[in-house]
Amino acid sequence: MRLGLDADRLLPIEPTVRSVARRLYDAVSDAPILSPHGHVDPRLLLDDLPFSDPVELLVRHDHYVTRMLHAAGIPLERLGLDPAVAVDPREVWLIFCSLWSRFAGTASGFWLTSILVEQFGIDEKPEFDNAGALYDVIAGALARPEFRPRALFERFGIEVLATTDDPLDELEPHRALAADPAFGGRVIPTFRPDAYLDPEAPGFGERIDRLGATSFDGYLDALAARRAFFVENGAVSADHGVLEPYTADLDDAEASRLFEAARAGTISAADARAFRGRMLLEMARMSVDDGLVMTIHAGVQRNHHLPTFERFGADTGHDIPVATEWVHNLRPLLQRFGTDPRLRLILFTVDETTYSRELAPLAAFYPAVFLGAPWWFLDAPDAVLRFRAATTETAGFYRGSGFVDDTRAFLSIPARHDMARRLDAAFLARLVGEGRLDEESAMSVARDLVDTIPRTAWRL
Amino acid sequence: MRLGLDADRLLPIEPTVRSVARRLYDAVSDAPILSPHGHVDPRLLLDDLPFSDPVELLVRHDHYVTRMLHAAGIPLERLGLDPAVAVDPREVWLIFCSLWSRFAGTASGFWLTSILVEQFGIDEKPEFDNAGALYDVIAGALARPEFRPRALFERFGIEVLATTDDPLDELEPHRALAADPAFGGRVIPTFRPDAYLDPEAPGFGERIDRLGATSFDGYLDALAARRAFFVENGAVSADHGVLEPYTADLDDAEASRLFEAARAGTISAADARAFRGRMLLEMARMSVDDGLVMTIHAGVQRNHHLPTFERFGADTGHDIPVATEWVHNLRPLLQRFGTDPRLRLILFTVDETTYSRELAPLAAFYPAVFLGAPWWFLDAPDAVLRFRAATTETAGFYRGSGFVDDTRAFLSIPARHDMARRLDAAFLARLVGEGRLDEESAMSVARDLVDTIPRTAWRL
Amino acid sequence: MRLGLDADRLLPIEPTVRSVARRLYDAVSDAPILSPHGHVDPRLLLDDLPFSDPVELLVRHDHYVTRMLHAAGIPLERLGLDPAVAVDPREVWLIFCSLWSRFAGTASGFWLTSILVEQFGIDEKPEFDNAGALYDVIAGALARPEFRPRALFERFGIEVLATTDDPLDELEPHRALAADPAFGGRVIPTFRPDAYLDPEAPGFGERIDRLGATSFDGYLDALAARRAFFVENGAVSADHGVLEPYTADLDDAEASRLFEAARAGTISAADARAFRGRMLLEMARMSVDDGLVMTIHAGVQRNHHLPTFERFGADTGHDIPVATEWVHNLRPLLQRFGTDPRLRLILFTVDETTYSRELAPLAAFYPAVFLGAPWWFLDAPDAVLRFRAATTETAGFYRGSGFVDDTRAFLSIPARHDMARRLDAAFLARLVGEGRLDEESAMSVARDLVDTIPRTAWRL
Repeated sequence: MRLGLDADRLLPIEPTVRSVARRLYDAVSDAPILSPHGHVDPRLLLDDLPFSDPVELLVRHDHYVTRMLHAAGIPLERLGLDPAVAVDPREVWLIFCSLWSRFAGTASGFWLTSILVEQFGIDEKPEFDNAGALYDVIAGALARPEFRPRALFERFGIEVLATTDDPLDELEPHRALAADPAFGGRVIPTFRPDAYLDPEAPGFGERIDRLGATSFDGYLDALAARRAFFVENGAVSADHGVLEPYTADLDDAEASRLFEAARAGTISAADARAFRGRMLLEMARMSVDDGLVMTIHAGVQRNHHLPTFERFGADTGHDIPVATEWVHNLRPLLQRFGTDPRLRLILFTVDETTYSRELAPLAAFYPAVFLGAPWWFLDAPDAVLRFRAATTETAGFYRGSGFVDDTRAFLSIPARHDMARRLDAAFLARLVGEGRLDEESAMSVARDLVDTIPRTAWRL
Repeated sequence: MRLGLDADRLLPIEPTVRSVARRLYDAVSDAPILSPHGHVDPRLLLDDLPFSDPVELLVRHDHYVTRMLHAAGIPLERLGLDPAVAVDPREVWLIFCSLWSRFAGTASGFWLTSILVEQFGIDEKPEFDNAGALYDVIAGALARPEFRPRALFERFGIEVLATTDDPLDELEPHRALAADPAFGGRVIPTFRPDAYLDPEAPGFGERIDRLGATSFDGYLDALAARRAFFVENGAVSADHGVLEPYTADLDDAEASRLFEAARAGTISAADARAFRGRMLLEMARMSVDDGLVMTIHAGVQRNHHLPTFERFGADTGHDIPVATEWVHNLRPLLQRFGTDPRLRLILFTVDETTYSRELAPLAAFYPAVFLGAPWWFLDAPDAVLRFRAATTETAGFYRGSGFVDDTRAFLSIPARHDMARRLDAAFLARLVGEGRLDEESAMSVARDLVDTIPRTAWRL
Repeated sequence: MRLGLDADRLLPIEPTVRSVARRLYDAVSDAPILSPHGHVDPRLLLDDLPFSDPVELLVRHDHYVTRMLHAAGIPLERLGLDPAVAVDPREVWLIFCSLWSRFAGTASGFWLTSILVEQFGIDEKPEFDNAGALYDVIAGALARPEFRPRALFERFGIEVLATTDDPLDELEPHRALAADPAFGGRVIPTFRPDAYLDPEAPGFGERIDRLGATSFDGYLDALAARRAFFVENGAVSADHGVLEPYTADLDDAEASRLFEAARAGTISAADARAFRGRMLLEMARMSVDDGLVMTIHAGVQRNHHLPTFERFGADTGHDIPVATEWVHNLRPLLQRFGTDPRLRLILFTVDETTYSRELAPLAAFYPAVFLGAPWWFLDAPDAVLRFRAATTETAGFYRGSGFVDDTRAFLSIPARHDMARRLDAAFLARLVGEGRLDEESAMSVARDLVDTIPRTAWRL
């Protein structure tokens, strides 16, 4: 069966509105890619080695993909997720191709189709019978120099690519890339301190020791120093992944007491929560000081299936969203810093019920608050349009973060940004068609959405 | 005023996409009806008696309909819901026809229109003036042999019809139907043990006595034995209606202690909850053993208006949905059985906020978890399309249950399945029109949605 | 850049369905405006003075507008919200015009465009360069007699306008307007007792003293007497703004004890909640007695940013919605009065997750319960269509309140009602296009939505 890409994919169906959308999309389709938050390994670009094989490239490290194959009944070890179990990549690829129909209608299916067609020129749907042939096509391409990471980086038109990094990371790859005259791209680190802020994270005490902190004050100073090091090396943001976006005023004496209990491993669950709440607020204070844009990704129950976590580790497809409350949780933080012009606070959710109820109203008042692009499970065509419809009427277009790909799948970056641009064109064109916006204004918004809006929100 | 059925009803409006939808719909419109969960009384088919009158057939037993008339100000006793108050069915029918406009835009209005036009050839909108004439048309039809239940069963093309039954039911009608050479249909029971698992259900102790259980072990054995009896008589699933889908690990000693307290009627609310949590988990364990598909229908506050319940009983239109949490509640169950290939767990909700946030992510990882079709208040055109849009991008089409009519309104079964087929065609055609799926793949999904998908999910 | 109004704005895009919508809209576009709930000051009509300037008219008192400018980084004092800081209205207008793009796609942008074009004949988009000229156009118009409030009232076709009033208000403006032979309009008060029912409201004790109540019984009698005074002066409803719609049975002795504690300022938070719960139930009882339609506006965390509240006061743009629970909270009230034909209870939410899950099911059973029109953050084109889609399939069209503008922005009233009429036409036309409703029925519903439905719900 034929695999193809409709030139007008994701644009509205009605012909008049589609032509408006087409004009809007054409104006931004080639704009440089700004990727201010993601999970690509910087060594990929530093080393610039060829990708080893199609499975390594498209399957094994994409937990959207392995998750769906797992749901179809394929144990993760058969997909190569257990290092102790050897698998033949051609076997894994055969499984993937045989189960291609499982991806029909999904975001992953949409991106994978874009990659197969656009990057590799494939024009047949993956299936049991052609799996070997497709494997050979991709493997053959990967051996060519134009499929090396740096060549792709350039071909994709990436202007900025942010990675996500441990606070104690020395950022060698970033520094080496910046110093490399042969590489013209901008690859910047992101400060991600979650495991240093949560007393209940395994290894917390040891991590504090590695920070060299022996008191609460010393701990705050050490964090600030690491942030400064990240800023020196190009970081523009600090990212915080939390189950709940809880913030709390907690005086220094109490915080200090909890810090000692946390180091000793004797902190109670309630105290650990209070400590996290104080530290999230503290991160806002530091962002006010050092200018790092603060991002919060909230509301995911990580590692829902413990037996899978114990065998295969984190990020193996069973992180599940939960209901998230922003209004009360963020109030202490926003009371203090919500109107401070030095703060940028970008909020990402996987609970779309909070779009119209909590997030758009917050972003429509607090100058510090920006709406994060639809995230994770919501980073898909219909979900993105629901986000726009739920937030724009209250907050407009200028209180958002711009698109964020948030991916470790390097090859999917252009397909994801292209999806976002098409969807924004589609949404704007609908407003034009409904007489709610003239095309001239829509064009101006479309351009801003890939340029001034993300540059402002992320201080790029 | 004219009453009619648009041949393209529920298909997308834009002409090109409508023609795609039409092709998809035509390919499945005549497929056999699989009805793996519902509430039709098996004696209806065993006895094969004529329906008594239009009110008995279309109004009195359909709490969607009586509820709406009640909301319009008609006391339930005037609709014949109080056996102590005699009503003239022609009076009730007159009320129903006079209030026909109340059903404009509702799911009930849609099904009723289908039934009136398709089954009875009526071409006038019900109203005060024609109520008597319409009554006569329907009553006349009901007297004819082709309107007997078995004739309808055959004409509707029902391949499987599941009923819902008490664990101690001896299933005589099912056995008699299976043994009847004159009846070629498949009518299967469903094991529905709610009242045997909830210590707070009135009559719990007595019910346990009837099970013959005098200890917790004996109770589990008795339940397993009844399940085995249902399996012998064709059951494919066990259904669980709960306010919250709470599951809990609870050791045998504690469970045994709670069991005794429950029998004695001295169990506390917290202990009753723990007991229910253990028993829901136990039901999953038994499903792993005996292969009955496990379904959970959660999140309905039954009998919200006690004065109505006390006078008219259950299922009288005031069961109201509440917010439902799946991720934490199901975790103990899924930790144990979520990746067990022997388990099928189909989840039904009336809280659509959980579609994209909880249910699709769970079904996209756990091979045991299937997304139940939109249920009850959500079993209507726009709601069904919201379900598809909210779940497909994460979970695709193959992690669902297929359509479930869940009805006690026998005559509405074909209209409901037809609605589902039209809506799936509409959704798929939209994806085709948006360049997200080619028509060949869409056709394949459309066929699977009425065939392999429900057969797999329900082990038919 | 040109500013215009599409004659078909908000109607569906597909041409056939648009023409259906156009016919439906044309049939109701000139119907009289019924505005049974809002916040216009009655003195505006009593005094009939010219509006002072464009900022006073369109910016300063519209917290949707000041909020968005604040989010864009403009301190509220620069917008004239701090009486201690003098601002030049031309300066504020310049800011507003310069930030016009921030309103693209918002509800405010839509209404403002309607006002600028329709009321003032402006045909250029506001921007930095034309701000002065636009100011002059509007200021010039405001000086003319046809822009006096009474002239506008007549030109807008307002049949009834309800204000919102303190229970101890003597309603002089209402009485003077009713007695004024030169004014033909109907301006009616609304009883809004929140601050008299919440022991935690600042000044509660003093307010009770002003009521003249020295006992719980006296307090109830005083409230009933004030309600009677409002009824005498034309009131049709009593409005209740609450964080949660909690209702509670609480016996008189306990209520009396809590009343004394409340007056003494010694009531605990839990007791204050119980007292509020009893009083909300009490208000329903009084509505049963005196016929005032009861409205509940629930789920807004007022004054989220305390520093802004302390400097600028209430209603300054940082009231933020929170999740709302209706099913358990209203149960005590509905058990008692939900089926009483004397009660009308209209429920307004800013938590759209409750539309399909809680509110439509409640309104589809309880004759007393009516669905309030989309409120506040949800009073915008896409949100209104989501409301219709989420509630109609369960509750139909006849369990709603009709449109409510709920505004203090007098000039926006016709634009808001026009928006609602267009959206209802759009929604109905879609149902016609999808074969779910014939056009004749749709026409009948469209007419009822601006006439019999609000007249019934509000007892106008």
